[in-house]
Amino acid sequence: MIKITLPDGSVKEYEKGITPLDVAKSISEGLARNVISAKFNDTVVETVSSLDEDGKLVLYTWSNTEGKKAFWHSSSHIIAQALEELYPGIKLTIGPAIENGFYYDVDFGESSVSEKDFPAIEQKALEIARGKHNFKMRSVSKKDALQFYKDQHNEYKVELIENLEDGTITFCDHDTFTDLCRGGHIPNTGIVKAIKIMNVAGAYWRGDENNTQLTRVYGISFPKQKELTEYLHLLEEAKKRDHRKLGKELELFTFSQKVGQGLPLWLPKGAALRERLENFLKKAQKKAGYEMVISPHIGQKELYVTSGHYDKYGEDSFQPIHTPKEDEEFLLKPMNCPHHCEIFNSKPLSYRELPKRFAEFGTVYRYEQSGELHGLTRVRGFTQDDAHIFCTPDQLHQEFLNVIDLSLYVLGSLGFENFTAQVSLRDPEKPEKYIGSLENWEKAENAILNAAEEKGLNFVIEKGEAALYGPKLDFMVKDALGRNWQLGTIQVDYNLPERFDLTYKGSDNEEHRPVMIHRAPFGSMERFVALLLEHTGGNFPLWLTPDQAILLPVSEKHEKYAEKVLNSLENHEIRALVDVRNETVGKKIREAEMNKIPFMLIVGEKEEEQNTISVRKHGGEDLGMLSLKEFANLVEKEISSTLKSF
Amino acid sequence: MIKITLPDGSVKEYEKGITPLDVAKSISEGLARNVISAKFNDTVVETVSSLDEDGKLVLYTWSNTEGKKAFWHSSSHIIAQALEELYPGIKLTIGPAIENGFYYDVDFGESSVSEKDFPAIEQKALEIARGKHNFKMRSVSKKDALQFYKDQHNEYKVELIENLEDGTITFCDHDTFTDLCRGGHIPNTGIVKAIKIMNVAGAYWRGDENNTQLTRVYGISFPKQKELTEYLHLLEEAKKRDHRKLGKELELFTFSQKVGQGLPLWLPKGAALRERLENFLKKAQKKAGYEMVISPHIGQKELYVTSGHYDKYGEDSFQPIHTPKEDEEFLLKPMNCPHHCEIFNSKPLSYRELPKRFAEFGTVYRYEQSGELHGLTRVRGFTQDDAHIFCTPDQLHQEFLNVIDLSLYVLGSLGFENFTAQVSLRDPEKPEKYIGSLENWEKAENAILNAAEEKGLNFVIEKGEAALYGPKLDFMVKDALGRNWQLGTIQVDYNLPERFDLTYKGSDNEEHRPVMIHRAPFGSMERFVALLLEHTGGNFPLWLTPDQAILLPVSEKHEKYAEKVLNSLENHEIRALVDVRNETVGKKIREAEMNKIPFMLIVGEKEEEQNTISVRKHGGEDLGMLSLKEFANLVEKEISSTLKSF
Repeated sequence: MIKITLPDGSVKEYEKGITPLDVAKSISEGLARNVISAKFNDTVVETVSSLDEDGKLVLYTWSNTEGKKAFWHSSSHIIAQALEELYPGIKLTIGPAIENGFYYDVDFGESSVSEKDFPAIEQKALEIARGKHNFKMRSVSKKDALQFYKDQHNEYKVELIENLEDGTITFCDHDTFTDLCRGGHIPNTGIVKAIKIMNVAGAYWRGDENNTQLTRVYGISFPKQKELTEYLHLLEEAKKRDHRKLGKELELFTFSQKVGQGLPLWLPKGAALRERLENFLKKAQKKAGYEMVISPHIGQKELYVTSGHYDKYGEDSFQPIHTPKEDEEFLLKPMNCPHHCEIFNSKPLSYRELPKRFAEFGTVYRYEQSGELHGLTRVRGFTQDDAHIFCTPDQLHQEFLNVIDLSLYVLGSLGFENFTAQVSLRDPEKPEKYIGSLENWEKAENAILNAAEEKGLNFVIEKGEAALYGPKLDFMVKDALGRNWQLGTIQVDYNLPERFDLTYKGSDNEEHRPVMIHRAPFGSMERFVALLLEHTGGNFPLWLTPDQAILLPVSEKHEKYAEKVLNSLENHEIRALVDVRNETVGKKIREAEMNKIPFMLIVGEKEEEQNTISVRKHGGEDLGMLSLKEFANLVEKEISSTLKSF
Repeated sequence: MIKITLPDGSVKEYEKGITPLDVAKSISEGLARNVISAKFNDTVVETVSSLDEDGKLVLYTWSNTEGKKAFWHSSSHIIAQALEELYPGIKLTIGPAIENGFYYDVDFGESSVSEKDFPAIEQKALEIARGKHNFKMRSVSKKDALQFYKDQHNEYKVELIENLEDGTITFCDHDTFTDLCRGGHIPNTGIVKAIKIMNVAGAYWRGDENNTQLTRVYGISFPKQKELTEYLHLLEEAKKRDHRKLGKELELFTFSQKVGQGLPLWLPKGAALRERLENFLKKAQKKAGYEMVISPHIGQKELYVTSGHYDKYGEDSFQPIHTPKEDEEFLLKPMNCPHHCEIFNSKPLSYRELPKRFAEFGTVYRYEQSGELHGLTRVRGFTQDDAHIFCTPDQLHQEFLNVIDLSLYVLGSLGFENFTAQVSLRDPEKPEKYIGSLENWEKAENAILNAAEEKGLNFVIEKGEAALYGPKLDFMVKDALGRNWQLGTIQVDYNLPERFDLTYKGSDNEEHRPVMIHRAPFGSMERFVALLLEHTGGNFPLWLTPDQAILLPVSEKHEKYAEKVLNSLENHEIRALVDVRNETVGKKIREAEMNKIPFMLIVGEKEEEQNTISVRKHGGEDLGMLSLKEFANLVEKEISSTLKSF
């Protein structure tokens, strides 16, 4: 008999040689039907592997990331079989699961595949799947494994096997197909009900451009046809909402090869939108007692030696800037905190003057590999809506509450209701990893946890995820593809006050060390605008959107009246423009829809006579003829319904 | 007979051997009395030198820079004599005129001088001056010159003479004193009526710290005692108005050794003031049709190869930033124009969309030697209120008019009435030095000249001072010491549109090259704020000043009322604060005066009863008791009297 420990901590005894599937059956039939993968003592196993010793067992279904991985990895075997049957003589290399689906790298030799071939491959793969063939693992000696692929003239698999140790090599069989494989499959091919080739791309063998170029076949599969349909729909939607596409269409930002990758250029409409966002936050910050400061974008080596960043400034960063003076070095600033510490240090302060809250829209530069760059979400230069709060340890709790309030106000005013929060605490088993006294850590962690609870935040706690200098609270939102991105962050820091020897005079007339909070409700202007674009599909909140209204004169003779209305709208602080092109109103409306302009104001004979405008909302709703005053009230009302004052 | 050409072009004949003084006499007795120096054929000569050939003669009086130079150089001889008489055995080295006065570097051996010795030296120097001794030049052989100083054991002069060629060595005698000297003196010592030692400082022989340290004696002298008194008064004033001192006292900005020299940190009050300045300009620019953009602070090598700056990026600049990728190089941006050209290039434009006016408060970085750095006027990182106008050649004139209007509006709103303007044109004799066609240059020069004249600007024309890429118009203002600084600039550029291959589609459907205007009405935020501080002595215009009013409760029991008034002032958008310290009202008033706060609002028993405030203006004027409404109106009126709308 062996003892199996389940994730809930319960221990059950089974006969040696039992399979994960049997264990599932012993729990419930429903679970057994859904189990598609398992992990035993931290190693991925098949659902039909025999368990021969005591150990911890985790069972996975499609709803787990691990389950999806086994599902997609198994699907790559099916696609490989389909390809081999349709294109005899091709050479298979590797075929792993990825974040969304799987791929298989194939040497097609003289053949090639393109989009028109996808349906036939998918058809063949589905036929195989429907056969409900079991995936069966077996051990093979190195000699036999090599012989198997030498017979197929597959030099890729031969190379892979040559690097493996004899005794560790396994093959996986299903139907008529055999592949070199470490394992991790679903029980049988029949579970795969929908399979789709997404695209093909070139890929070098082992990623080395000196090697043969292979064809990478990307695919995805699902246990239900409906899920595939939904996924394809989501992809379509995501494509429409891709902030790179929208940013270009709405003329918000651009990139230039000459300026450099990952260095956005904000076009007039984007720069104005960003300024509105900044002014919105500035206003709230002013009320919350922040003071703006401005610091340079470089700092001397000495600054970063003090902060401790210099040692970490490795070869994968922007390299130091030298000057005519020997030994003089500057760094592009990767964060604003060292500069703000020096501002704090510029004059002696007493406890009566704390908290000090220095805020700056500070542009920082961090090197990313060009392959990592992605629109505005991952760039090499970005502007943090940064602030550093310097306070006494006793003020920490209240300051944290205030910062959460501000963060919630920001997310709420911009329509991000579905954010998640994460509190990152230190690993209690490794206290030596962290800077600062135990007492201060407890104070800080309690301050965060209590503040998060008091504010009724829906948050998860991650132990061991704190920064080495303090605990933190992050806000996360999803992009159009459902990927999580960190936006706002609040971090406690005991390290920099120590390193910069920051002090204030306490009521006891002694020097004390302040605590520091780093915080950025947007995170960065670039990433926030990107997420906001994907979240809203470019239909920004009315207070923020570039053009709030467009005037569409029915014909040339109404242009003068349109200009008059435009002036009047400007007096009401409504951002509007006139479309004076010699086009039909229908075409102008279609283009205004594409440009996501919230209100289309049509002016013709009747409107001019009655001193009104005919108002059409983005999306098609007709609000009829309104006076300018009525329209201005409408705009004001809509704005105040989303943009509360802080 | 020889022919002498005077600066007005007139030619007169004189007997060979005539002196500049004689020439002056032949023109007028008044001139002869005032001539103190001369230049003959571009060489400085004495007023008593004999002229032996045809040539161009310029006569200088005290009002010329060259006249002052001779005056101060001569005064250094007088001081040297005084020092030698008072401190026998000292060794003289060199004693040139400088921008304000002169110095003499002296090896005092065992002796030393300090401030307490200055009056005796000045007294002795004046005695010598009153002797009206003529300055007489004479040639000396190298051998005799060496012997003269060897006898005095003066190794410094010996070293100087050893580096001179025999036959070119001259001595200057006056009274009992002789000095090695190239010439350039006033006629006699009697012209110096006032002489003052300013300070002494250490200076290494030949500026090399491995050499002996000498004592540098700084002095200044004037033809009238009254001028010295005025100068000393100006210095006192300038010291009070020094923007570095005021900036610290008013807590506007600071520097940090760790961040680096020449990299200002804007403190809360300074950052807020700067933001008000920026918003002021943004508002005017918006009306003038500018669009804001935002670009990064670095650019790839490729960008600067295209712009032509890369070749000029020499060893005296911030060096390129390398990255993990071989051959990848970025530069800290020294100007914003290349980035704006890339923004212009980001989409095709038609003539109907021009002019494009891209504005950015763009922070740029330029390396300066640490000795060149000076407060906010000469820094290594500064923010230009930059904009680039891209227009058709035909639009140039109107755009220039508009930019002059904007520049005058900016200078006027900030109280700079006494600016000067300079139009820099190309050197008509060296057309090959410049980029762009003759036709375009003529168009641009005429556009500038006509615009400057149309606007009634008081300007000087400097031929040959144009940039190689186009003519320009600069605005200059003086600092507290009367030194000229360039603030605003307007420059035409034919070069970058060419290099970046900028085009627009003309009405003829062909591609055309736009013209570019660089302009910055402030110049840079740093320099502008520095000059404004010196210009106003920290008493900023009311709309701009950090704290417009301070509430001074007479005692603790009126603090609550003071807070109520504060709230009410905030609602009127008046920036105010309350001084709640436990100090007398008298002391609070004195400090508010020091902090340059325009209005002191005293609140006590009577004020609280009657719901009023007692208003005292900065400088002492008592405006009596006012209601809040009356005070708010007063503030509004004063603001609108300086800050016109554009």
